[in-house]
Amino acid sequence: MSVLTIRRPAGRTILRVERGLIGRAGPLIAALGAGPRVEIVTDSTVGRHYAPRMISSMRRAGLRFGMTVLAPGERSKSLKSAARLYDRWARAGADRTTLVVALGGGVVGDLAGFAAATYARGLPWIIFPTTLLAQADASVGGKVAVNLEQGKNLIGAYHHPRAVFSDPEALATLSDRAYRSGLAEVAKMGMVSRPAILASLARLLREGRLRDAAAILPLIRACAREKARIVARDERDRGVRRLLNFGHTVGHALEAAEGYGRYTHGEAVAVGMAAALRMSVLEAGLDPVSAAEAEFLLSRLGLPTRLRKSPGKRFWDALARDKKRGRAALRMVLSPAIGEAKVFELPSLTTLRRVIESLVRSG
Amino acid sequence: MSVLTIRRPAGRTILRVERGLIGRAGPLIAALGAGPRVEIVTDSTVGRHYAPRMISSMRRAGLRFGMTVLAPGERSKSLKSAARLYDRWARAGADRTTLVVALGGGVVGDLAGFAAATYARGLPWIIFPTTLLAQADASVGGKVAVNLEQGKNLIGAYHHPRAVFSDPEALATLSDRAYRSGLAEVAKMGMVSRPAILASLARLLREGRLRDAAAILPLIRACAREKARIVARDERDRGVRRLLNFGHTVGHALEAAEGYGRYTHGEAVAVGMAAALRMSVLEAGLDPVSAAEAEFLLSRLGLPTRLRKSPGKRFWDALARDKKRGRAALRMVLSPAIGEAKVFELPSLTTLRRVIESLVRSG
Repeated sequence: MSVLTIRRPAGRTILRVERGLIGRAGPLIAALGAGPRVEIVTDSTVGRHYAPRMISSMRRAGLRFGMTVLAPGERSKSLKSAARLYDRWARAGADRTTLVVALGGGVVGDLAGFAAATYARGLPWIIFPTTLLAQADASVGGKVAVNLEQGKNLIGAYHHPRAVFSDPEALATLSDRAYRSGLAEVAKMGMVSRPAILASLARLLREGRLRDAAAILPLIRACAREKARIVARDERDRGVRRLLNFGHTVGHALEAAEGYGRYTHGEAVAVGMAAALRMSVLEAGLDPVSAAEAEFLLSRLGLPTRLRKSPGKRFWDALARDKKRGRAALRMVLSPAIGEAKVFELPSLTTLRRVIESLVRSG
Repeated sequence: MSVLTIRRPAGRTILRVERGLIGRAGPLIAALGAGPRVEIVTDSTVGRHYAPRMISSMRRAGLRFGMTVLAPGERSKSLKSAARLYDRWARAGADRTTLVVALGGGVVGDLAGFAAATYARGLPWIIFPTTLLAQADASVGGKVAVNLEQGKNLIGAYHHPRAVFSDPEALATLSDRAYRSGLAEVAKMGMVSRPAILASLARLLREGRLRDAAAILPLIRACAREKARIVARDERDRGVRRLLNFGHTVGHALEAAEGYGRYTHGEAVAVGMAAALRMSVLEAGLDPVSAAEAEFLLSRLGLPTRLRKSPGKRFWDALARDKKRGRAALRMVLSPAIGEAKVFELPSLTTLRRVIESLVRSG
């Protein structure tokens, strides 16, 4: 018997949150030492608003580029779309020196990143995230994926972008609903790790500046940096990164039970956080006043924290399938105090059933 | 600006070359600490011969397993086959604790490894390679892939198996042609790195023991270990691993020009090595007698070292597309002395054209 040991050099992702980054794409890419060949991936909504300024900048920097424009929405996050990117890139003669540039939200980032991870065993890529959810959360951490019929993000990889360039000006065209969905993940980071974020959210609410790019920028930066700190300690979800699933056990089950139509991801997570906060009071010793305040903040952000009716069998089935569950009846991230989180293994679903009912009754 | 740095723990692959390993699959898997859920991937030819003994052993070890049987041949190495595996695994409730077990040659290993690399962002996997090519070469090094219409292995990843269990008894049912194809890669390892392998091949030839499992075992082990040593220094083909492409520049172009039908991979590489040996005499100072001896050894192994006719435009186009080419007119691995190799950047194709013609004329 012999053993092959593979050591990989550490990966580095540059994180920048600044206004106007999209319009400086050309020099930013040149500064990475990448190119001269670039393949842009975007969707038609984002592309209409932001591709022109990106392209002008690339032209001025002398970059040669191709561009693939996807239909907006979750349905583009498929193996079929990945195959479409492969096909285009192969026709364009892409090789390992080609830089993939994702311009868009979570769907575009996940798909472009997955195709980049698997084309020629890995193309370098960067992302200009254009939703609050992607800037504050999804673009950091290297998770890329496409959906299968049997499950969201079931096919994927860890493939860290060389850089995440978050331009808060791109948030101007986001719908209020999509924006609020991003606020849910911002609030989550406050609850599990950085309570100052919750205080900042409350202040921006009071000042009516939640959608002010200059005002939200420091919060995006705080979330991205905190996530980077956590991911650096646990890329593969074996330890501390799991704490970022606060609100996601119930959230994922709600999304799955409702067929991913009724709730945005952030909305489902908001309801999930309300459940997790109440569970935390009952099972983790969280002070009930803090829990109520945090729940109230979510609702003031315009996020749902109640259920219209008792979730049915599909919800409980989805919960049982959740891959974060492990061998206990329920494995769930709870918060002993705001700003802290821990994985709890619960022997039964009894408490969760009560909590879920409380979210319906108090609605 | 901040920077996210990802450090990954070193990967470990256990390499064992021993007779009877397939029939001990159950305890071998149990000893890895894997399971209890296993998904076997094989093809109908290999499966017929070797799956029963593997399955019995797994049953005795109390493992639960599913099995997917592919059609034999390169056409199974597709995104469509990968999607079929995803579908089956999802239905079976596979998660990150499920171990994928590949039983077969290069096609099965590449496909199962690719599907394992991408399902749930990476399932652990092991391989029982059943061809000489896979045991001596392809199963070591973590390269997994599927083919696109536009190119072989265009979609892939680096995903090292936890273990490579090479059982030389599985070579008994291999056709002579497939066996010789594997000998080409064995000879290649001798030429670029371990000349003792060439001496051993010559001895087994004299003794008529080339297909004797006990006799070939030490050669498989030597090749696998040498490859592991090289891959440990350069997983991603940036340096020393490129030397393993000796004979492959011309070999790949021949395969592509002939539509992957006329030559097996090993046969194409054998012709490519003949070309590379002659190039080495002209461009790298290789002693002509050593080159002739090495070329003669290939032909005594039953491998082609001549071209029936001058290759046409498709060959030269494919050569120009070869991704190992870089910016020189031709980038090619040559051997200054048997057992050594180096990447040469050649400013023109002139010498190669002469060498290719010499392989036709002297045929």
